[in-house]
Amino acid sequence: MSEAAYTLILLRHGESRWNEKNLFTGWVDVDLTPTGHEEARRAGELLLEEDLLPDVLHTSLLRRAITTANTALDVADRHWIPVHRHWRLNERHYGALQGLDKAQTREKYGEEQFMAWRRGFDTPPPPIEDDAEYSQAGDPRYADLGEDLPRTECLKDVVARMLPYWDDAIVPDLRSGRTVLVAAHGNSLRALVKHLDGISDEDIAGLNIPTGIPLLYELDADLAPTTPGGRYLDPAAAADAIQAVADQGKK
Amino acid sequence: MSEAAYTLILLRHGESRWNEKNLFTGWVDVDLTPTGHEEARRAGELLLEEDLLPDVLHTSLLRRAITTANTALDVADRHWIPVHRHWRLNERHYGALQGLDKAQTREKYGEEQFMAWRRGFDTPPPPIEDDAEYSQAGDPRYADLGEDLPRTECLKDVVARMLPYWDDAIVPDLRSGRTVLVAAHGNSLRALVKHLDGISDEDIAGLNIPTGIPLLYELDADLAPTTPGGRYLDPAAAADAIQAVADQGKK
Repeated sequence: MSEAAYTLILLRHGESRWNEKNLFTGWVDVDLTPTGHEEARRAGELLLEEDLLPDVLHTSLLRRAITTANTALDVADRHWIPVHRHWRLNERHYGALQGLDKAQTREKYGEEQFMAWRRGFDTPPPPIEDDAEYSQAGDPRYADLGEDLPRTECLKDVVARMLPYWDDAIVPDLRSGRTVLVAAHGNSLRALVKHLDGISDEDIAGLNIPTGIPLLYELDADLAPTTPGGRYLDPAAAADAIQAVADQGKK
Repeated sequence: MSEAAYTLILLRHGESRWNEKNLFTGWVDVDLTPTGHEEARRAGELLLEEDLLPDVLHTSLLRRAITTANTALDVADRHWIPVHRHWRLNERHYGALQGLDKAQTREKYGEEQFMAWRRGFDTPPPPIEDDAEYSQAGDPRYADLGEDLPRTECLKDVVARMLPYWDDAIVPDLRSGRTVLVAAHGNSLRALVKHLDGISDEDIAGLNIPTGIPLLYELDADLAPTTPGGRYLDPAAAADAIQAVADQGKK
């Protein structure tokens, strides 16, 4: 096994209002549930217990990731570290599915189409209209994107827009010796893990990342994980939660 | 009156655990009280009501300012804006007084000494020992300061260490047209207001800034306030609170 040179901690936000309601969320900026806040506090305690103290935080522009990180870092007494936020860490944009019930969507379009949208690597849902209720057209936080604002994304698209941020913003922090916390989303983190572990376009479909449990990656000098798949700071809770994510969309 | 060119919003953190207990706090990193959290939410509502939406946040490295800003911005739907944190926005370091009861300190040292420490422009309290309970020697967030870590400060010292941050970090954000929120502390904000309004070393003693009420400064092209003293977004609450601050240290 190669020697650990860099420390990276991934954290998917705690349960959100729309996780709870089983809706497609994407770029819709929903709140955490009380359970989600509790998961965020627990994440901070896990960091503290293992003395894994982040030196810098990278988050998305979405409240559920920002709040999870703020809470976890406050518990870990690291509320004062530098923060960088970027849309490239946002959840996958779910296009016209944003705001729809997952179980109803499965019924309406059938299992095959549903799974292609949900787990297919390169199958984006239909794009969202700019005047739709859950569109992000006109949201000031994305004003700089102009026409590059996504209207839908497949996981392949997420990999493509996430990687430049990894290379340009996160890797330099790791190379400077900082312990880096990335607080983000199910699919932006799957995109990152796919890259780190060299997971194929097919196999990534089977990978779920549970909410609110820090996932530690120790990376060697070439930024390869010394332990493939990393290590959850609460492995038992992670195993339970991964099963729950896999069951989403079922009745 | 000259024309408003830039928008600056100052926000002193909500009530802290040690405000409540009437202790000298300084650089000790205490939490907000439930009242303080409520003040932070109210500050966010005031920003929202007046459509004063910050584009960038500057805070200290202390939890009570960071939490106040996080909460206020979340309420105002601006949780996603860029954040910069710096020790130069910290509260005045209260030296060996940190952790002492204000009323007891007044009794022990007498009114004259007490008021010289509390309101004198250039009278620092005795320095804190590095091995004292409430010293910040060894605190990782200040590791880069080395021997420049303050062991006590008077308001004159705060002005001297705050102004370089104003000039180098905050003014460029204003000049670029951004609405800037500075979430900080009673004395780091007094230092800034002294500078903005050109208040004398003597007169600054009489200026108190209440907790949790946004204070709007519209600045002209020369960064001079178009309305001296700015405008509190809740003037009645500000007037009440200023009186309460003035009463601190009395029995």
